[in-house]
Amino acid sequence: MSYILGIDMGGTNIKAVAITADAQVLRQDQFETADDPAPAWPRRISDHIRAVEKELGRAVAVGVVAPGLAARDERSIAWMQGRLASVQGFDWTAHLARGQFVPVLNDAHAALLGEAWCGAAAGARDAVMLTLGTGVGGAILCDGRLLRGRLGRAGHLGHISLDVDGKPDIVNTPGSLELAVGDCTVSERSGGRFTSTEGLVSAVVEGDEVARRVWLRSIRALACGIVSIINAVDPQVILLAGGISRAGEHLLAPLRVELDRLEWRPFGTCVRIELAKLGQWAGAIGAARRAMLWEQGAS
Amino acid sequence: MSYILGIDMGGTNIKAVAITADAQVLRQDQFETADDPAPAWPRRISDHIRAVEKELGRAVAVGVVAPGLAARDERSIAWMQGRLASVQGFDWTAHLARGQFVPVLNDAHAALLGEAWCGAAAGARDAVMLTLGTGVGGAILCDGRLLRGRLGRAGHLGHISLDVDGKPDIVNTPGSLELAVGDCTVSERSGGRFTSTEGLVSAVVEGDEVARRVWLRSIRALACGIVSIINAVDPQVILLAGGISRAGEHLLAPLRVELDRLEWRPFGTCVRIELAKLGQWAGAIGAARRAMLWEQGAS
Repeated sequence: MSYILGIDMGGTNIKAVAITADAQVLRQDQFETADDPAPAWPRRISDHIRAVEKELGRAVAVGVVAPGLAARDERSIAWMQGRLASVQGFDWTAHLARGQFVPVLNDAHAALLGEAWCGAAAGARDAVMLTLGTGVGGAILCDGRLLRGRLGRAGHLGHISLDVDGKPDIVNTPGSLELAVGDCTVSERSGGRFTSTEGLVSAVVEGDEVARRVWLRSIRALACGIVSIINAVDPQVILLAGGISRAGEHLLAPLRVELDRLEWRPFGTCVRIELAKLGQWAGAIGAARRAMLWEQGAS
Repeated sequence: MSYILGIDMGGTNIKAVAITADAQVLRQDQFETADDPAPAWPRRISDHIRAVEKELGRAVAVGVVAPGLAARDERSIAWMQGRLASVQGFDWTAHLARGQFVPVLNDAHAALLGEAWCGAAAGARDAVMLTLGTGVGGAILCDGRLLRGRLGRAGHLGHISLDVDGKPDIVNTPGSLELAVGDCTVSERSGGRFTSTEGLVSAVVEGDEVARRVWLRSIRALACGIVSIINAVDPQVILLAGGISRAGEHLLAPLRVELDRLEWRPFGTCVRIELAKLGQWAGAIGAARRAMLWEQGAS
């Protein structure tokens, strides 16, 4: 059976999916990245591909996703600092030596490609993803094309400013969306009472008034970020992914109330806000999608 | 001589340019829009085209630019409220009856296309324009393509929020970039002392300390908006256009100081900030450029 392999390299685990051209998942695997003390992942990934191909036959194409900024030629991650810095400049096409190009994508970009293929944004040509976790990331699809930008940085939507006088975040943006809603600041935002958004939302559900105020404040900031994104890139749908999105309706219901007040709706049209569907497999599926499009000659 | 006609319809005046495929301007004309009491502009524009073609021969193509949101099929402005509402839904291809399609563009989108063709962003594939005037508008070019979005709204960069607790602007965005730097709020921002940014900047130049504080505050907000845009769409160059950009170095010098602090610069790369070059003719030139690309079969 004809299939594509998508490999998603994270700091802790590698996820791999074998998927057909009509998005039927044949295999899902997960194994440790093992970057430290010496990077074991290059060998682990080649071994995994060999094992899968032994079982399923040769893959039509292989795509890879990793954190960091992907190079314009999609040959490597051109820029990655801190954890997994070993991935920077690593040439997957050379390493895998398949006699075919192996495109490399940024993780949030890949997740949106996956969702726009067979997930919550299936069929949408204008879509945005926000990954709400420890930090806040994102990706933008406009007129069917993933925005990469000059350095592969496009879609870093956690780093838009919502407070000119706010503290700088990790890339120096004052009062960023990431600082306003990411798990990285939940302790600070709640006066030390909560260490995760999950705990905060549980307290909200139990009727804790202080927790409710902190949560609604974060949601208001998220809504302001979302209307900024809507006015800047005009999507049809915005997907919420990442750990914080597991709050589900506890997140969506108050967010919709804010958007009813804040969103510009020409023609009465409002942007759909949805939870992402593919969960932790979105990146690997998106990598497979990119590799498939590459083989078909898409730019 | 082979040339293209670009027509830029504003609320007060219509600007028309006849330009060759290598960006040589053959003619520039300006005449009143005359929308009130009854729209005289449809007839004025056809008359103008007839007069130009009598002199220069038939134009290879004609493109039009107008305020509002352009329809996805580029046949008309699909959404325009208030002044010039008469332009909404007006079908230029039918009206001009040239036996060829006449593409219609939003004004800020056209201005960026013009600048990216033969202006301050010539040759750039990833560029952003900010028009700083009474209001603040914009446009985004990503990987050589103009972002339109689902409703043609992409690039409304004046309507990104920089203050979650701020007052709503005309499209409900709280504490927007437009409110922070547009001429529409200069009186409010200066405690009633100035009615235009020009007056404010003159006072800054003369050493007025209060004016300086107001101006630097506005520039700080502009810098925060610019880093948000940089992190979201990752351009190579950002062009500043509109009346406020006439402040030139009085704007650019303090803006660069802020950006040195606030901009995320992977690889040490910084985004060029430049003044737009084509001035009031940018829209008409961009309309001609779009019509030329259309004739060449570009999507």
